[in-house]
Amino acid sequence: MKSIYEIIAVKRDGQELDASEIKRMVDLYTSGKVADYQMSSLLMASFINGLNTSETSALTQAMLSSGKTVQVKGLDRPLIDKHSTGGVGDKLSLTLSPLLAQCGIAVGMFSGRGLGHTGGTLDKLEAIPGMQVFHSTANFGKLLKTHHWAITGQTAQIAPADKKVYALRDASGTVESIPLIVASIMSKKLALKSDGIVFDVKSGSGAFMKSTRHAQQLAKTLLDVSNEYKLPARALITNMNEPTGRMIGNYLEIMETVEVLQGSGPADTIELTLELGASMLAVSGVETSRSTAMRLMKTALRSGSAYESWCRYISACGGNVKIFEHPERMMKPAHKSIVNSPKSGYISAIDTGRLGFLAVRLGAGRQNVSDKIDYLAGIEMLAKLGAKVTTGEPITVGYARYKSRLAGFTADFLDCVTISDQIPGQERLVLKRL
Amino acid sequence: MKSIYEIIAVKRDGQELDASEIKRMVDLYTSGKVADYQMSSLLMASFINGLNTSETSALTQAMLSSGKTVQVKGLDRPLIDKHSTGGVGDKLSLTLSPLLAQCGIAVGMFSGRGLGHTGGTLDKLEAIPGMQVFHSTANFGKLLKTHHWAITGQTAQIAPADKKVYALRDASGTVESIPLIVASIMSKKLALKSDGIVFDVKSGSGAFMKSTRHAQQLAKTLLDVSNEYKLPARALITNMNEPTGRMIGNYLEIMETVEVLQGSGPADTIELTLELGASMLAVSGVETSRSTAMRLMKTALRSGSAYESWCRYISACGGNVKIFEHPERMMKPAHKSIVNSPKSGYISAIDTGRLGFLAVRLGAGRQNVSDKIDYLAGIEMLAKLGAKVTTGEPITVGYARYKSRLAGFTADFLDCVTISDQIPGQERLVLKRL
Repeated sequence: MKSIYEIIAVKRDGQELDASEIKRMVDLYTSGKVADYQMSSLLMASFINGLNTSETSALTQAMLSSGKTVQVKGLDRPLIDKHSTGGVGDKLSLTLSPLLAQCGIAVGMFSGRGLGHTGGTLDKLEAIPGMQVFHSTANFGKLLKTHHWAITGQTAQIAPADKKVYALRDASGTVESIPLIVASIMSKKLALKSDGIVFDVKSGSGAFMKSTRHAQQLAKTLLDVSNEYKLPARALITNMNEPTGRMIGNYLEIMETVEVLQGSGPADTIELTLELGASMLAVSGVETSRSTAMRLMKTALRSGSAYESWCRYISACGGNVKIFEHPERMMKPAHKSIVNSPKSGYISAIDTGRLGFLAVRLGAGRQNVSDKIDYLAGIEMLAKLGAKVTTGEPITVGYARYKSRLAGFTADFLDCVTISDQIPGQERLVLKRL
Repeated sequence: MKSIYEIIAVKRDGQELDASEIKRMVDLYTSGKVADYQMSSLLMASFINGLNTSETSALTQAMLSSGKTVQVKGLDRPLIDKHSTGGVGDKLSLTLSPLLAQCGIAVGMFSGRGLGHTGGTLDKLEAIPGMQVFHSTANFGKLLKTHHWAITGQTAQIAPADKKVYALRDASGTVESIPLIVASIMSKKLALKSDGIVFDVKSGSGAFMKSTRHAQQLAKTLLDVSNEYKLPARALITNMNEPTGRMIGNYLEIMETVEVLQGSGPADTIELTLELGASMLAVSGVETSRSTAMRLMKTALRSGSAYESWCRYISACGGNVKIFEHPERMMKPAHKSIVNSPKSGYISAIDTGRLGFLAVRLGAGRQNVSDKIDYLAGIEMLAKLGAKVTTGEPITVGYARYKSRLAGFTADFLDCVTISDQIPGQERLVLKRL
């Protein structure tokens, strides 16, 4: 049996680790018998020399088996999961779940909080007064059986090894490694036994992966590891060169979700919902024809059945659905800062990552783990990429419960946006399908 | 100014760190503000992606300046240092110092303890009853001025950052990196301001560098960094496919040193002494003609002046020089185990590293830092590489103060040695001169 030193040396020297060696490192690290500095040394060697699919799967398995897994029994339809690599204004888990619950599949997810410049589904749901987002395994199963969708907060019992490894990576310069990212994602995703998964891999200025090439590598590795686990999976690489939809911020995104579920809403949010929805229906095997899937979903939106599912679920979780009758009333306590265009031209680029951080500064996210979120804080985009704007025309609105947070908003916002004389080329929303 | 995370990322991504970044990491690590897991992450990135000469020099400087340096003033001749990368039976610092003190230069060294399978000069000197090996800076200077040679123990004030980094490397799989090894060596060597240095880079089964190619890379990097510091330097790559000389073990090596200084001793120990000595005289500028240097040294050995210098110095340091009249008498309390050749043939290979560890097990070195050394323990080689041996002929003797330690010695020794039917090719002692 190799010593810890020898295991580190294998990866350092560019050789392959076997599953038992990876499991031993993770187990000993989780129990405190391998030191942080030994694990960070192995993580750096893995970052530079890479991990192949077997190694990535073994790391996934080792972190997965450090915690518990959840299997929902007695469901009469396939349970499909969705994972987004994180973007700005990304409320697609919220639009997709009630919608697909009306199209013959069940949608279940373990969701998280906001991270860095990106929002988190749990925070968004909690913007609804009274809403409970943590459910026991029994209640999660019951919600799924009743509503055919359920979203719950990931507990400390899910992949605790990943939590410890992630904190170490964050402090030791080994975050941006595709195999390490994939093992982290998959160890949490596999904790919920599903019948299929769709990965929404964001690419662009507001994504962790800035280029389509990197996003594609990440998507491919996610699919490779899913395949090792015999988990049906698909991936879409979607455009994150601007926020998804018009709203960024927790309650603002709930408002947009309601709009979409009521059959209106911004075109890009609708299109991405339908694209990801078609992939989820396809991966489930319930509806493999894209055109039929599209028709099914459009009917569920138009008929109001998706919106009714939303209201029933929110209500079952303690959320006050009355507010959806006049969603804008909740925003009353928020202060506003309207940004007018300083010149005429076309919105040609948006630094979406920076815009995400700007929303965090308004109060929509946490700068420190202990920060309290201002659910009303956020940004409403009145003009997006390609829009023609004229001098003095309102192009965006900043919201915050505390006026002081809006100081300097105009200048900060304009720093994120490029207005040019020429019409920019139109960008595609779905960059690749894998 | 880059964050710690960004500094790690530079090296992780294969870019070059500048001297101020390296110094900041080392300073913050030494003062505890950079965590072990961040430093080990950077060390692993440096191991895999390498450090160029500027970076290696900057790391050397950062570790050097974490401690104090020693400058001997008022010396009437060049002060020359020697460094060996570590071998088995390597007593050349002891033969060279008094010899060269008689040839027009001064020899000064900060020496260390045994490490792994290799012995340490301090331990060897301490095998002489009464001998003191730690000297104050003032006394070190006085010894140098009086005897023209002096060896002192490296104190905790010399390159403390290296000590901390070395312990971390040892535990995190980053020992065998040429730039890291060189920075570690040089940060200690440069603490003594000398006028030149000769590196004895060992290569072979008993060396840290198993191949001549690796040894040559190490030698080249040592010379490159010396050059950055404008320190005249030369390097010899010498053969460590068998122990140097006949004796392995602290007092046994003192006996061999005395033999050589009295003008006899094993041919290889003599040849290596003269080769390294010629390089040290050349690097000092005092005697650049190899043939003149050889003549000078041979005269000093034959005339007894080198041996007299040895006795005067040892005596000045409290050592009992009376024992040198009958050196073998000191060995009386030791138990012996004579190994006879199990077959006839030629000694064709010696696993010298393993042999070094066998000597350690007899008591000649420490398996744990707190172990006490048995100065009498060791191995006397009666037959070396290429020797013709016949069945039943004594080929080696193991010594130990504690009989139990000699249990199994014969089998263990024979595991280190290959006896074959054919005469092996003769190996050169000096493999390269740089």
